[in-house]
Amino acid sequence: MSLAFVLLLGCWIQSAATQQQKPNFIIMLMDDMGWGDLGVFGEPSKETPNLDRMASQGMLLPDFYSANPICSPSRASLLSGRLPIRNGFYTTNAHAHDSYTPQDIVGGIPDTEILLPEVLQKLGYRSKIIGKWHLGQQPQYHPLMHGFDEWFGAPNCHFGPFDDKTQPNIPVFRDADMIGRYYEDYLIDKKTGESNLTQIFIQEALTFIEQQANKKPFFLYWAVDATHEPVYASTKFLGKSQRGRYGDAVQELDYGVGQILQKVNELGIANDTLVIFSSDNGGATYAKEMGGNNGPFLCGKQTTFEGGVREPTIAYMPGRIPAGVVSHQLGSLMDLYTTFITLAGGKIPTDRIVDGIDLSPSLFKHAVQERPIFYYRGNELMAVRLRQYKAHFWTWTNGLDEFNKGINFCPGEEIEGVTTHEQMNHTAEPLLFHLGRDPGEKYIIKPSSPEYKQVIQEIMMIADDHRKKLVPGVPQLNMCDESVMNWAPPGCHKIERCLQGPKSKPYKCFWPH
Amino acid sequence: MSLAFVLLLGCWIQSAATQQQKPNFIIMLMDDMGWGDLGVFGEPSKETPNLDRMASQGMLLPDFYSANPICSPSRASLLSGRLPIRNGFYTTNAHAHDSYTPQDIVGGIPDTEILLPEVLQKLGYRSKIIGKWHLGQQPQYHPLMHGFDEWFGAPNCHFGPFDDKTQPNIPVFRDADMIGRYYEDYLIDKKTGESNLTQIFIQEALTFIEQQANKKPFFLYWAVDATHEPVYASTKFLGKSQRGRYGDAVQELDYGVGQILQKVNELGIANDTLVIFSSDNGGATYAKEMGGNNGPFLCGKQTTFEGGVREPTIAYMPGRIPAGVVSHQLGSLMDLYTTFITLAGGKIPTDRIVDGIDLSPSLFKHAVQERPIFYYRGNELMAVRLRQYKAHFWTWTNGLDEFNKGINFCPGEEIEGVTTHEQMNHTAEPLLFHLGRDPGEKYIIKPSSPEYKQVIQEIMMIADDHRKKLVPGVPQLNMCDESVMNWAPPGCHKIERCLQGPKSKPYKCFWPH
Repeated sequence: MSLAFVLLLGCWIQSAATQQQKPNFIIMLMDDMGWGDLGVFGEPSKETPNLDRMASQGMLLPDFYSANPICSPSRASLLSGRLPIRNGFYTTNAHAHDSYTPQDIVGGIPDTEILLPEVLQKLGYRSKIIGKWHLGQQPQYHPLMHGFDEWFGAPNCHFGPFDDKTQPNIPVFRDADMIGRYYEDYLIDKKTGESNLTQIFIQEALTFIEQQANKKPFFLYWAVDATHEPVYASTKFLGKSQRGRYGDAVQELDYGVGQILQKVNELGIANDTLVIFSSDNGGATYAKEMGGNNGPFLCGKQTTFEGGVREPTIAYMPGRIPAGVVSHQLGSLMDLYTTFITLAGGKIPTDRIVDGIDLSPSLFKHAVQERPIFYYRGNELMAVRLRQYKAHFWTWTNGLDEFNKGINFCPGEEIEGVTTHEQMNHTAEPLLFHLGRDPGEKYIIKPSSPEYKQVIQEIMMIADDHRKKLVPGVPQLNMCDESVMNWAPPGCHKIERCLQGPKSKPYKCFWPH
Repeated sequence: MSLAFVLLLGCWIQSAATQQQKPNFIIMLMDDMGWGDLGVFGEPSKETPNLDRMASQGMLLPDFYSANPICSPSRASLLSGRLPIRNGFYTTNAHAHDSYTPQDIVGGIPDTEILLPEVLQKLGYRSKIIGKWHLGQQPQYHPLMHGFDEWFGAPNCHFGPFDDKTQPNIPVFRDADMIGRYYEDYLIDKKTGESNLTQIFIQEALTFIEQQANKKPFFLYWAVDATHEPVYASTKFLGKSQRGRYGDAVQELDYGVGQILQKVNELGIANDTLVIFSSDNGGATYAKEMGGNNGPFLCGKQTTFEGGVREPTIAYMPGRIPAGVVSHQLGSLMDLYTTFITLAGGKIPTDRIVDGIDLSPSLFKHAVQERPIFYYRGNELMAVRLRQYKAHFWTWTNGLDEFNKGINFCPGEEIEGVTTHEQMNHTAEPLLFHLGRDPGEKYIIKPSSPEYKQVIQEIMMIADDHRKKLVPGVPQLNMCDESVMNWAPPGCHKIERCLQGPKSKPYKCFWPH
């Protein structure tokens, strides 16, 4: 970050709240967990007692969205408060294609983005990320370069095992240095699904909270990933769920949520700590029985149907957030940026569009603010939701080439003209749905109806205005290069675990859908 | 009922419990309400605060079934404790076709069936049915001929308006006599959906409970029907729901549930009153936005997929049933027969097979009893569930003739080889699903897998044994005759509302699916 930029930051960050008033923040972000995976959201096995209790003591937000139906862009948006199209987490290699940060990705979170922990750091917070970063694995993109004070976790997905010759295993970091690798030091048995990673992530969280409880305010970003393939759980949880291995992982994460809330309560800081539970995108329906449950919603991860972006969200702050209430505020993970900064007494950058809104009125006063939800896939605005109405400007699941190979984003679901296998442009006459009457996006409202005519005009004006003001960020997910893989991450020398990578040979990343 | 039969009844009905110990019973049976229509079961609008509270103070039963995916057979089974194939509520006009009791039906509940209120009457109970009877509209089939002491409601669905010339409007009864007709005295505005029927049904319930509270034990069967097409709500509720008119009806029923529970509590009889909330079959998916929500389950009403028969069930009895617990007991509406009679100190008939089991261990001791669920459609055993496994012996939705006309039992859903439009016989190699991992019945377990081989043998033995012991009842839903319609129901003379019907001309009823 340039000095000029740091000075600029200094200008708009002001400490309006005193040190004592600043609440702590905890985001528990699940990976590929679906809206319908929690008992309180209707999962039939009802195996999430801790989350259900969290909801009964806090606020349930059934109309809460991720900014994108795929991991990295969703996470970049959460931390930047801005849509992927603005923060650069998208590709222009193909129209409306999903992209993320595998380890050969060249790009990452741009220095020009002002991340949540960066702002909080200036406001006196100590921030820790536990788990999956996913905002770029080259060293300049790492969490400690962007405002986090501590990190335990990995830059990429826990895919593997790789051979460390054609592809290195993913490194695990303690703060700025790698301390080992998945499948070498941190094991996941892909056959049995056994791994104690979630237990480690829980312990990391409890330790951090304990350490920080009596010091300055903290921000804990608990980005666990047991429900992302390869799905894992520890021996104590394996085979326990009615739902198979995916359910084992959910149960262990639910246990973790219980542990963290218990710790916060034991330490007497629950009233000063805003805890948000959510997920980065919808359940991975293509993973079949090893993927999440999106309840009554259409399709899943990687699509802009509700199943792809509606997240199981709970807010918890006893004494501040009323217990057992439901808020139909249309919310977004990006709102956490604006909400946290505001509550911490900071100011939101004014030199750029920030998409997140301050949810404080919804959380603390049960108010509902009207605002649209923009559904993006790659570089395309696919749909807009306003109140109960959702208009699709584009529809697409995946191409027939992929679909015919068995990759199905909407297994068992097929809605004519909606779950299309070619990209359909409806911009001239968007497909309109009423999500209250029709949460499954099954019944297109007739364009000839008065209801359509009234609503669509309003939505089209919002979409036009959005497009007009849009300044797309430099796309970060276009170029790949095997040389940027995790061959020799920072700290590898200290433990003699550096690998020799190939020479740089950049190429356009291939994003199949 | 013959005298000999009455004497026989006398033999097996014994009052084991004393008068004071006998609990009251309330069944709140919804009409075409889906599993996913309650907030606590994941309806996204979360508009059922009273039911959600009932669940938090009682027991949630997510694995609870109706005996049949269509109204009359389901209700006949509830009151007889026996499958439709045994009590006669099925047709042999066509294989595996759904049938019910429109007003030209000749049949009804046979005298040989010993209904729940009949048994309870002998045990000193006073029973009232409020709402829809549906066990035959000829006078000999009416509720007061089968054990109920009071009735306010109608024998058939609230379809209409009819012209009283080619078809009479459905009569509304007070006990043994008709007191008016739908669309004449009891209005439903099909255009706006306005009707105060639910309010009347609520008031009837409150009055009955009040009257009985200090007398002998009672059984209230609250069979409201606002969520069955034509869906209705009173002016106070119309237009209030996020879900449109269907949601308005749900909200009014939820309000009614709240009123009834409040009354029971106010009167100090909550601890002595077992209240069960459930529905007669799955949400009518073919009604599109005017039909219920079946959550993550496949298809809906009239099918033997989970969406057709999995019911939103809550049991409530403060002090006896622990609060806020979930029971995965495989339950059936038929179990209420056995459970209530047992709790009332009676004995279950031993001269016939009763399908219902005593749920007391599940309700009061949180035990789980292993038992199969038999899924029937008409005269065919379509599927069997054992633990988490469900084996389909037959699959069918509806025929292409109907489907091509737009009647779709599985809108937006299509699973190859499962949601078939011809009747597929899988008896030799049943389609097996694991409902825990796969509640949507999407992923067929491979017949070559060890899992399949192990389970299917067990299920096939259960099915074989079931078929072997089966003595089908005389089918009641084969013959129709316009002369048996509600032309001159009992009591019509008193209010001068008798109509002249045609001469008897019986014909085979036409059941299209």
